[in-house]
Amino acid sequence: MEKLTHIDKQGNARMVNVGEKMPTERIAEAVGYVLINKETLEIIIKGQNKKGEVLGTARIAGIMAAKRTSDIIPMCHSLLLTGVDIDFEMSELADNQGKIKITSRVTCSGKTGVEMEALTAVSVAALTIYDMCKAVQRDICIENIHLLKKSGGKSGEFIYSAL
Amino acid sequence: MEKLTHIDKQGNARMVNVGEKMPTERIAEAVGYVLINKETLEIIIKGQNKKGEVLGTARIAGIMAAKRTSDIIPMCHSLLLTGVDIDFEMSELADNQGKIKITSRVTCSGKTGVEMEALTAVSVAALTIYDMCKAVQRDICIENIHLLKKSGGKSGEFIYSAL
Amino acid sequence: MEKLTHIDKQGNARMVNVGEKMPTERIAEAVGYVLINKETLEIIIKGQNKKGEVLGTARIAGIMAAKRTSDIIPMCHSLLLTGVDIDFEMSELADNQGKIKITSRVTCSGKTGVEMEALTAVSVAALTIYDMCKAVQRDICIENIHLLKKSGGKSGEFIYSAL
Amino acid sequence: MEKLTHIDKQGNARMVNVGEKMPTERIAEAVGYVLINKETLEIIIKGQNKKGEVLGTARIAGIMAAKRTSDIIPMCHSLLLTGVDIDFEMSELADNQGKIKITSRVTCSGKTGVEMEALTAVSVAALTIYDMCKAVQRDICIENIHLLKKSGGKSGEFIYSAL
Amino acid sequence: MEKLTHIDKQGNARMVNVGEKMPTERIAEAVGYVLINKETLEIIIKGQNKKGEVLGTARIAGIMAAKRTSDIIPMCHSLLLTGVDIDFEMSELADNQGKIKITSRVTCSGKTGVEMEALTAVSVAALTIYDMCKAVQRDICIENIHLLKKSGGKSGEFIYSAL
Amino acid sequence: MEKLTHIDKQGNARMVNVGEKMPTERIAEAVGYVLINKETLEIIIKGQNKKGEVLGTARIAGIMAAKRTSDIIPMCHSLLLTGVDIDFEMSELADNQGKIKITSRVTCSGKTGVEMEALTAVSVAALTIYDMCKAVQRDICIENIHLLKKSGGKSGEFIYSAL
Repeated sequence: MEKLTHIDKQGNARMVNVGEKMPTERIAEAVGYVLINKETLEIIIKGQNKKGEVLGTARIAGIMAAKRTSDIIPMCHSLLLTGVDIDFEMSELADNQGKIKITSRVTCSGKTGVEMEALTAVSVAALTIYDMCKAVQRDICIENIHLLKKSGGKSGEFIYSAL
Repeated sequence: MEKLTHIDKQGNARMVNVGEKMPTERIAEAVGYVLINKETLEIIIKGQNKKGEVLGTARIAGIMAAKRTSDIIPMCHSLLLTGVDIDFEMSELADNQGKIKITSRVTCSGKTGVEMEALTAVSVAALTIYDMCKAVQRDICIENIHLLKKSGGKSGEFIYSAL
Repeated sequence: MEKLTHIDKQGNARMVNVGEKMPTERIAEAVGYVLINKETLEIIIKGQNKKGEVLGTARIAGIMAAKRTSDIIPMCHSLLLTGVDIDFEMSELADNQGKIKITSRVTCSGKTGVEMEALTAVSVAALTIYDMCKAVQRDICIENIHLLKKSGGKSGEFIYSAL
Repeated sequence: MEKLTHIDKQGNARMVNVGEKMPTERIAEAVGYVLINKETLEIIIKGQNKKGEVLGTARIAGIMAAKRTSDIIPMCHSLLLTGVDIDFEMSELADNQGKIKITSRVTCSGKTGVEMEALTAVSVAALTIYDMCKAVQRDICIENIHLLKKSGGKSGEFIYSAL
Repeated sequence: MEKLTHIDKQGNARMVNVGEKMPTERIAEAVGYVLINKETLEIIIKGQNKKGEVLGTARIAGIMAAKRTSDIIPMCHSLLLTGVDIDFEMSELADNQGKIKITSRVTCSGKTGVEMEALTAVSVAALTIYDMCKAVQRDICIENIHLLKKSGGKSGEFIYSAL
Repeated sequence: MEKLTHIDKQGNARMVNVGEKMPTERIAEAVGYVLINKETLEIIIKGQNKKGEVLGTARIAGIMAAKRTSDIIPMCHSLLLTGVDIDFEMSELADNQGKIKITSRVTCSGKTGVEMEALTAVSVAALTIYDMCKAVQRDICIENIHLLKKSGGKSGEFIYSAL
């Protein structure tokens, strides 16, 4: 059975020692969804036509959170990210529902991967959309946050395949 | 059509002015799920029997994040939380799957609600579980984060009802 | 001669003790300017027509900085802000110059004023505009940051009068 | 027309990707001024003779802010600064006025320049002087913050030339 | 046997719920010592005669840390401190030794005490003195950090009595 | 007489410029003690048998603080730590006393040493134990925090020898 690298032999939490790893180019992409109803979607789109502040604010929140991942997730190593991109895609679903797809792409040249940075960016962008829309809809749901792919490091490339 | 209170008439982001609100007792509960496979679940449970560091670390990360919500979510007001509780429930699903249910309960006496604090606590606890298990499973998924209920404030009590 | 309240009798820095002050409604407004050339101004305006990301990003940075003022300015007390608004006004000057006027308005119910929060909001918004435009102009200048007015507290209302 | 590198083709904010840049030695110097009246200047100088706490506190605030620039300015990359120096020069002006000149010098070996770190150091030092003197003068003004020079990186050396 | 209030019945960490406590005036004083050799003491005193930067920097670091205690200590509640004072007393000991006594006094009107804020202020001031002197002495020791007294709250006044 | 490197020739605080240092592998180990009475020790041990939350929480707090050392100690350089380990050892003393020994080990590949990171980890872990036990004992004392050893850098290896 494989072991949890953030837990030592005595079962205690620790930061994995990455001192002997070589820095390589790291890329990670993550995705997540915010489920809203059609009315909320329309309000966002309308604002989008003007100044796009809901998604614009969510993008900035996600980028800032990505840079602070090691300050939010206890066992994450500090990294110097070289780039963070966050994108949104809005679509209408059946039954008066809508959804916003959030994707992030984080790059870094470092000793550990940037999966957590990409996932934190998506999560905080989703929470920010929630915050900005909660006055008009109280049963918003954040769904299906996962890694899309990563490359770099010893473990090599990974591409998420839906079950 | 109701309006987004974090957006002003010109379509710009702003912090809603809550100066005229009265402080009331606020409670918010949120929930979210981490979907893992059965092997990962067993590794966590085994660690749980020893020192429970995966869930223990996630709990602390969630509590600390709740206190810092206004620093992470751009338009959130700073609040003095009076309590934060985070609980975990693990269960096996069919098809070699398992899941961890995360619930948070945040209380405060203040001028704005604590929904975002409860949701941030759940999100960061979920990300921390992900971080501590990603060495053994790379396709973990965070699911279905939403408010369970809230009380206090002018808008009164809200209870989430699944669609 | 009046004394610096953040310096004690021995000449050492301290946080002024405000324990005996009564909480009152506090408002502070501040202003500052970013001097750019006309080309940079046009690039921002053009972006503004699309998504307004330069000023939108500056607004969010200013709001987040206002909330963190006590973490940035050593002797500032922590406060629970009830509102932060930041506005921008762009204008062309003679001689191929342009300027962006930044105004902030911060409110709070507390034991100390919110001047520093309003000034920090303006300063960080100005720095963010600088950051986002420095690739197209390297001699941007931030000018004339000062309080516009404040009210609340024992010292009463203050309105800035230009010399 | 040159483009804003922090804005992508769709007009959205992003962190510029610097992954392909080579790390070089970076230096940036910035300057700014705090305009005060002669009485305030004398109070500071008097304190200076004792313990220098106003300028000493401003120096520390500026150094700490320089290290946190990427946490304050949304699109700034995190960097490992190798040195930060902040200096003050006080002078009397005509008409009962005085001024404090603040200069910063920041060095780093990295993939992006340290202009924003130098400008943030000056801005926060100025705000701290303001905060520590606002009890004795309410119409203090922060003036003329700009880059003095920078070197390193692809864009080469830049020296500010006053208009 | 009394119970640890930060641990719930299942043995999990939590923030104690203080929602039903009444806000009262809280004061806490703490103390700690930095043991250095006489040479280091003299270097600090000499600097003290000039600008006092070692102790001045330590004071500011301690004050800033006090304000951020709830961000550093996981189960601490956020509080709005009304005052923080830090003092230093230097003395020579026998055998070529010297020591710096650090005392802090923190006040607040709130639902929980400020012991941890006072202790964090002392600890961070001590670490800062260590940092600024470690180039001249490598075996500095931080000693005997404890509460001196506290008042306010249900548990009433406490005065430390040395064993 | 050796000089304080964090103080310049004018007696002002500064961040030492480390731009010309070569990055080398750095290791630092530190130690500190929490003195408690036997009853408190037993309560912790009992909790330890269940979920170990007192020491588990202290470990996480210490690791997170190590990563934020440059944000807490004014003149510390930012570093990318490659590993942080914190260990605890509990023992009974005579006269109804007990103690918890805290050791930290921090590694990094960088231009400055990690002594302050190791000492900050120990200090914050000690403060967290204090916080979690202060409801059952009010005269806890934190003792004898010092470096155990360090290696890497120009100054070479150092091993602490008790006086």
